[in-house]
Amino acid sequence: MAIKRYKITVVGAGFTGATTALMLAQKELGNVVLLDIPQLENPTKGKALDMLEAAPVQKFDSQITGTSDYEDAADSDIVIITAGIARKPGMSRDDLVNTNAGIVKSVCENIKRVAPESIVIILSNPVDAMTYAAYHALGFPKNRVIGQSGVLDTARYCTFIAQELNVSVEDVRGFVLGGHGDDMVPLVRYSSVGGIPIDKLIPAQRIEEIVQRTRVGGGEIVSLLGNGSAYYAPAASLVQMTEAILKDKKRIIPVIALLEGEYGYDGLFMGVPTLLGADGIEKIYELELTAEEQAALDKSADSVRAVTSAVTL
Amino acid sequence: MAIKRYKITVVGAGFTGATTALMLAQKELGNVVLLDIPQLENPTKGKALDMLEAAPVQKFDSQITGTSDYEDAADSDIVIITAGIARKPGMSRDDLVNTNAGIVKSVCENIKRVAPESIVIILSNPVDAMTYAAYHALGFPKNRVIGQSGVLDTARYCTFIAQELNVSVEDVRGFVLGGHGDDMVPLVRYSSVGGIPIDKLIPAQRIEEIVQRTRVGGGEIVSLLGNGSAYYAPAASLVQMTEAILKDKKRIIPVIALLEGEYGYDGLFMGVPTLLGADGIEKIYELELTAEEQAALDKSADSVRAVTSAVTL
Amino acid sequence: MAIKRYKITVVGAGFTGATTALMLAQKELGNVVLLDIPQLENPTKGKALDMLEAAPVQKFDSQITGTSDYEDAADSDIVIITAGIARKPGMSRDDLVNTNAGIVKSVCENIKRVAPESIVIILSNPVDAMTYAAYHALGFPKNRVIGQSGVLDTARYCTFIAQELNVSVEDVRGFVLGGHGDDMVPLVRYSSVGGIPIDKLIPAQRIEEIVQRTRVGGGEIVSLLGNGSAYYAPAASLVQMTEAILKDKKRIIPVIALLEGEYGYDGLFMGVPTLLGADGIEKIYELELTAEEQAALDKSADSVRAVTSAVTL
Amino acid sequence: MAIKRYKITVVGAGFTGATTALMLAQKELGNVVLLDIPQLENPTKGKALDMLEAAPVQKFDSQITGTSDYEDAADSDIVIITAGIARKPGMSRDDLVNTNAGIVKSVCENIKRVAPESIVIILSNPVDAMTYAAYHALGFPKNRVIGQSGVLDTARYCTFIAQELNVSVEDVRGFVLGGHGDDMVPLVRYSSVGGIPIDKLIPAQRIEEIVQRTRVGGGEIVSLLGNGSAYYAPAASLVQMTEAILKDKKRIIPVIALLEGEYGYDGLFMGVPTLLGADGIEKIYELELTAEEQAALDKSADSVRAVTSAVTL
Repeated sequence: MAIKRYKITVVGAGFTGATTALMLAQKELGNVVLLDIPQLENPTKGKALDMLEAAPVQKFDSQITGTSDYEDAADSDIVIITAGIARKPGMSRDDLVNTNAGIVKSVCENIKRVAPESIVIILSNPVDAMTYAAYHALGFPKNRVIGQSGVLDTARYCTFIAQELNVSVEDVRGFVLGGHGDDMVPLVRYSSVGGIPIDKLIPAQRIEEIVQRTRVGGGEIVSLLGNGSAYYAPAASLVQMTEAILKDKKRIIPVIALLEGEYGYDGLFMGVPTLLGADGIEKIYELELTAEEQAALDKSADSVRAVTSAVTL
Repeated sequence: MAIKRYKITVVGAGFTGATTALMLAQKELGNVVLLDIPQLENPTKGKALDMLEAAPVQKFDSQITGTSDYEDAADSDIVIITAGIARKPGMSRDDLVNTNAGIVKSVCENIKRVAPESIVIILSNPVDAMTYAAYHALGFPKNRVIGQSGVLDTARYCTFIAQELNVSVEDVRGFVLGGHGDDMVPLVRYSSVGGIPIDKLIPAQRIEEIVQRTRVGGGEIVSLLGNGSAYYAPAASLVQMTEAILKDKKRIIPVIALLEGEYGYDGLFMGVPTLLGADGIEKIYELELTAEEQAALDKSADSVRAVTSAVTL
Repeated sequence: MAIKRYKITVVGAGFTGATTALMLAQKELGNVVLLDIPQLENPTKGKALDMLEAAPVQKFDSQITGTSDYEDAADSDIVIITAGIARKPGMSRDDLVNTNAGIVKSVCENIKRVAPESIVIILSNPVDAMTYAAYHALGFPKNRVIGQSGVLDTARYCTFIAQELNVSVEDVRGFVLGGHGDDMVPLVRYSSVGGIPIDKLIPAQRIEEIVQRTRVGGGEIVSLLGNGSAYYAPAASLVQMTEAILKDKKRIIPVIALLEGEYGYDGLFMGVPTLLGADGIEKIYELELTAEEQAALDKSADSVRAVTSAVTL
Repeated sequence: MAIKRYKITVVGAGFTGATTALMLAQKELGNVVLLDIPQLENPTKGKALDMLEAAPVQKFDSQITGTSDYEDAADSDIVIITAGIARKPGMSRDDLVNTNAGIVKSVCENIKRVAPESIVIILSNPVDAMTYAAYHALGFPKNRVIGQSGVLDTARYCTFIAQELNVSVEDVRGFVLGGHGDDMVPLVRYSSVGGIPIDKLIPAQRIEEIVQRTRVGGGEIVSLLGNGSAYYAPAASLVQMTEAILKDKKRIIPVIALLEGEYGYDGLFMGVPTLLGADGIEKIYELELTAEEQAALDKSADSVRAVTSAVTL
């Protein structure tokens, strides 16, 4: 018999990591290990304990462990990496990339050691490049190294459409291709509400404004918060991906995957629609794009390549 | 016809308030207004928007509005007050009480004006005294002014018991009487696991340690976090109370209620078991206590009285 | 204050009605009244009690009342009509229509009396004609008289697509227009999986087979069961509609609505995409159809008209 | 990596079996195989398909397969046995026992062959005796052979208490010891509402009536239905047990277990409080009973023994 709870490790106990840990536990997807650096061990334990004390009220039986010891992550089924710093004033983009790549690589070396069979999901920014860095540090097959961006970008896009039309979010369907940045490509042609294409319901000019708002959706939150960046919707996105894998749901979800010829790119990590199931990325869907869409995707790929090339492996 | 979504206002958009807002929306208990002071209007809007962007992923249709304008709270069915400051170095306890009482009173005057039919739940600390302050500022009937402490204290107590025995939190039952402080009174005699009294399962010495850990449960989190206090379990507790009321569940839950003779106290706000339903506190249950339990409760009442007396109405 | 549980009456305590009652209670959408004829009062009470005895296990607090007395349905917010007989050997179609129309009319006269402000959802067969009969018997505004067929037909269509591709049902999107019969019109052009049009994923021949299977989906279950017809998916469909209304979710859902000019039909009750919210049918969406789709819809409308014309008001 | 969905087989596709299958799928506890005899293969397939067609509406991704072929149950993690006939007029109790024991044995021989590592839960009646029959036919260790009765009996008992006091079912706690029959032993002393012992809230005379109603709770439903027996609450009970095991929740739940000395009985299968987790019955809790309670339990044990002795192994 092999009935056992899954084990999910969340690396980085900041707002996103902690919120992710809570949402995983609430869904009883498995036992959760919340891991941060030794200097933050006590706050990490404090957050984990605070969450655990919500369990009798919310009736979930997942364990949540705060730790700075990678041994506690041993044999994790899923590892979610949220670690990394935010860009500081005066810091060049390349400095940011390499600082975070260093963090991600260090995390991945530990994960490779203690959880060599895990599926790894990366959120650290800039996420396309960090997924690339993680892939090389882990040495795992490509189906087990997955970056999050498309779920979040799509969620923002769908939120704006639902608000525009005052309809249920359950009925809005859309998705976003490409890198997680200002060049991302929301596929308007494939967006619908209750099955009705959005261009039948929203004027072209408003759609364009929604697309543009989506592209800078992360920045909108940063600008409002004044200090820090989004964490609720990112956490929800990570949890959706984890659930798709652990329940083998075979969901079609846009994630950052290693492209080896798909869409005309080779060796690039970028957001594309995939089938997520027990084996991680089980399939990449190649859509026929219009010339305009392909051009937009090429532009996004250029941006991703530029950032990725700044990573020192 | 009168089908409409409930409206729930959460005053204070700090960690607890924001987490509460998210959990309310996830349960689709109603539309949520997250309200903080004008200086924090943008971060409040940012948090609300970030939550809303999780809706397409988590499939909830509650609106979440960030604001500093009490008009947005008009006609709320429930108002949850989390506003207040934490004690600062060098601040006397009485200074803290009066600073927070001032905040709570100001909030309540606004609530009285815009949502005169609402049921108000107070979390601000010290919570027994703040519930007293709110009651007087609101002028609402006593069933509509409720303080949160017992749900949280009970949740911590049950968490520790579940951990001790390695059993499901779903099967642990206990509750805590008295003020929200070191003198709170976990009723060991009425605590059970799967219906089995805990003193059949846990040695007396360990039970005493668990009781003591419960009493200082808030401090344990503060001490671990190093900066700030618990918010996950407090938010879950507020949501449980709100759900009990909005779904008229008639739950038996320990909350801070105005005692007018019950347990021998008059005019005191303190934690006792109540029936929570559509009318707020629909009933207070008076338990027969042993002499020892009554003495412990008296001691807790003394502490509550001492803090409450520091409030200038 | 107006916090109270909604009241939902389900008329007809057969398999579909009973399953619907259970699912409504499990979601705590309101108190449920399960109503059948006096001769079936005891079995109806028995089913209601059996469901209620599941509540402590599944932790729902809705009341479920079995009755044959319409007074128990007084002031219902929603009434769901599942009553009616199945076609018997030797019975002409017109006989069936008039027998069930008689039942529906009798039910509606009672509903009109005891719950004049309710929103009524009809499932009784043939459902397009029975919705017409109910509308005339109730005398309610058209937004409050709704027939169920499109949710179920769409669910079957999506099930077959999900099975064909071995993907999550969460990612399949499609809908079905027209009457609830062999002429129904699944809109293939607007069907997608994870946002990808199904004609990019499934060969045309297989899509046609799936469409055909959908059209006779009810018959497939009848044929397998040997005795009786589908009730699980029909019940789930009724509950989705009820939830959309009671939570004012503004869902875009295909239902049977009174057409007054939309799609070129007047005075006809037939399945079209609508906005379902607190006011019932808040809007009808008119889609641009291809000539082929319009012809198919016309054919379906002819069938609906033929059946409806057999109803004696 | 070993991420995969669990497989749960439900033997017997009558009302209880089918309802159980649906509830398992709705909770996404695993893929479900609904199995009945070859003569009922088509109706079984029909019910399974009908449920599956509810999936797009209710958003669950469990497969549900109707079959009469035990090969489809191969390597099930959990097997739930609901098969058996109801007592017919003129049939002696011993005839019933042996007819159902024959059915259970036949089922178990197949299960032993195709799913030798499974945990088996028995509902077939008379359930104490059928669990005994299953244990001997399976030859599995005792922790993997579990009878359902206490969850259901407790649920009924708690329903009646919640109704009596008009309080939430979430706050009622009680449990029932002994055989599943008129001699079952609801432990009044350990029953509470919101932690408050029920004898503080309900007069002794009413408690006695509730206890008595619980004892004949199955008969009450049979009598109301007129034709058939309860299935909603029994199905919910089976699902709670399955969830406790598959999520390794370590729930404390009364089930029918093989007693080997506990409570003074040896070789008897009877209802006692147990710890249910990944290994099935992980522990039996022995409670101190009063002389009166022990006498009642002895009487119940006598009844169980009498029925069990009628089983021909």
